[in-house]
Amino acid sequence: MLIVGELINSSRKKVADAIARRDAGYIKALAARQAEAGAHLIDVNCGTFLEGEPEVMGWLVDLVQEAVDLPLCIDTPNPEAMRAGLERHRNGRPMVNSVTDEPGRAEAMLPLVLEHKARVVALCMSGSGVPSSADERVEVARRLVGRLVDAGVPSEDIFVDPVVAPICTDPKAGEEFLEAVRRIRRDLPDVHIICGLSNISFGLPKRKLLNRNFLIMAMAAGLDAAILDPTDVDTMADIVASEALLGRDAFCMGYIEAYRSGKLG
Amino acid sequence: MLIVGELINSSRKKVADAIARRDAGYIKALAARQAEAGAHLIDVNCGTFLEGEPEVMGWLVDLVQEAVDLPLCIDTPNPEAMRAGLERHRNGRPMVNSVTDEPGRAEAMLPLVLEHKARVVALCMSGSGVPSSADERVEVARRLVGRLVDAGVPSEDIFVDPVVAPICTDPKAGEEFLEAVRRIRRDLPDVHIICGLSNISFGLPKRKLLNRNFLIMAMAAGLDAAILDPTDVDTMADIVASEALLGRDAFCMGYIEAYRSGKLG
Repeated sequence: MLIVGELINSSRKKVADAIARRDAGYIKALAARQAEAGAHLIDVNCGTFLEGEPEVMGWLVDLVQEAVDLPLCIDTPNPEAMRAGLERHRNGRPMVNSVTDEPGRAEAMLPLVLEHKARVVALCMSGSGVPSSADERVEVARRLVGRLVDAGVPSEDIFVDPVVAPICTDPKAGEEFLEAVRRIRRDLPDVHIICGLSNISFGLPKRKLLNRNFLIMAMAAGLDAAILDPTDVDTMADIVASEALLGRDAFCMGYIEAYRSGKLG
Repeated sequence: MLIVGELINSSRKKVADAIARRDAGYIKALAARQAEAGAHLIDVNCGTFLEGEPEVMGWLVDLVQEAVDLPLCIDTPNPEAMRAGLERHRNGRPMVNSVTDEPGRAEAMLPLVLEHKARVVALCMSGSGVPSSADERVEVARRLVGRLVDAGVPSEDIFVDPVVAPICTDPKAGEEFLEAVRRIRRDLPDVHIICGLSNISFGLPKRKLLNRNFLIMAMAAGLDAAILDPTDVDTMADIVASEALLGRDAFCMGYIEAYRSGKLG
């Protein structure tokens, strides 16, 4: 399971405040904590800074790389901010988050993906917005993956994100997402499947309980990467346990090692 | 989700001791605790008492019905103990646990199922033992369900148990079980699917973590009943959350009600 640490995101108030006062120590500590907790990439999102975004992104990418050796996931719909982040990236291969099927978005992002030999999140959004059914998600996934592969992106560098929607507004949102994951895993076996979980529980109490349960279901459906908070011990224990249950941990050695080092709580 | 409370089982030392000294208070309290925690049926198993089993079963069935209004799940491979339990059952419709495809077992149990209009666990065991693949499980399930339906048992009274096997001896055991659940749900849409979880984690540390993760995965695959400890608050919270996530809880009302009454921890 590939873990992308989600904490450096300016939609979180403390992060926005730290960026506003250019508090390098806060950002670096947040990167280091996620690396220690087991993240494989560090997501960086400063979308709330609007026209200042490219400059802030450059500053963040430099900082995070001073703190950790991990590659970064540059998280922005703004091509200029994406370019600023990628140009300063030197910790291995970056991840572009994201390319979508919305008009113009792929055209703007694809050259950057190819130039930087980046891994890429293929977010299943199209001109008609967030997909509601499994069918729609699979259709957008096929189109986006086809487009990326045709442009020269290797399948194994593509991380399809089928887009989690809240169950509070649509009781079928969970099942439709899981069905999309199962079908993408079956029909496009070489790509990875990634998502953020927290949308599923929007508007409901005890969100972490719902997010954790849904992550486990999504892993069983074929998810092999996630954007989440790696410092949450319960979530990370669930991931280790689920990998063992799904036969993705030979002889349960990862599970037993996690137990011995106290990581299962 | 139909919950069968598993705690009255003589393989648990305290229960065996309580039965040995005919401690009615202990057994009745254990039944009442499971009912309060949300069990829909109370499983009764005194298999370790061997030749005394029919008499002990009769005593237990009487006792549990003094304590709770719920129906019982009579859990024994011994036809005489099954008969003794069913004959004293008066709390609605009992469940027979179990009929298998082993030579002689169905022949001995089926007349009792029909006579008492019981619901029945169809355990996917055959003459060749515990199934190892999804294919074997589905094959035994089809044969057993066919046999029960031919004998006059309504599909909706059949609870197929595909048999959980430990991942420590076979890393594919989890996936094969889940795949069997998905196929039985698809191919035999009218039957229920039930299991006990704890075998999955046999031989490994932190068993509850594995059991809880696996229950969530199995529910997403199509499981709609389980034999478990309903007094475990974490497990019951997972079930409520998973029902909401899987669209089996209209408008998340069950989830919100569980939250309000403090049942989500």
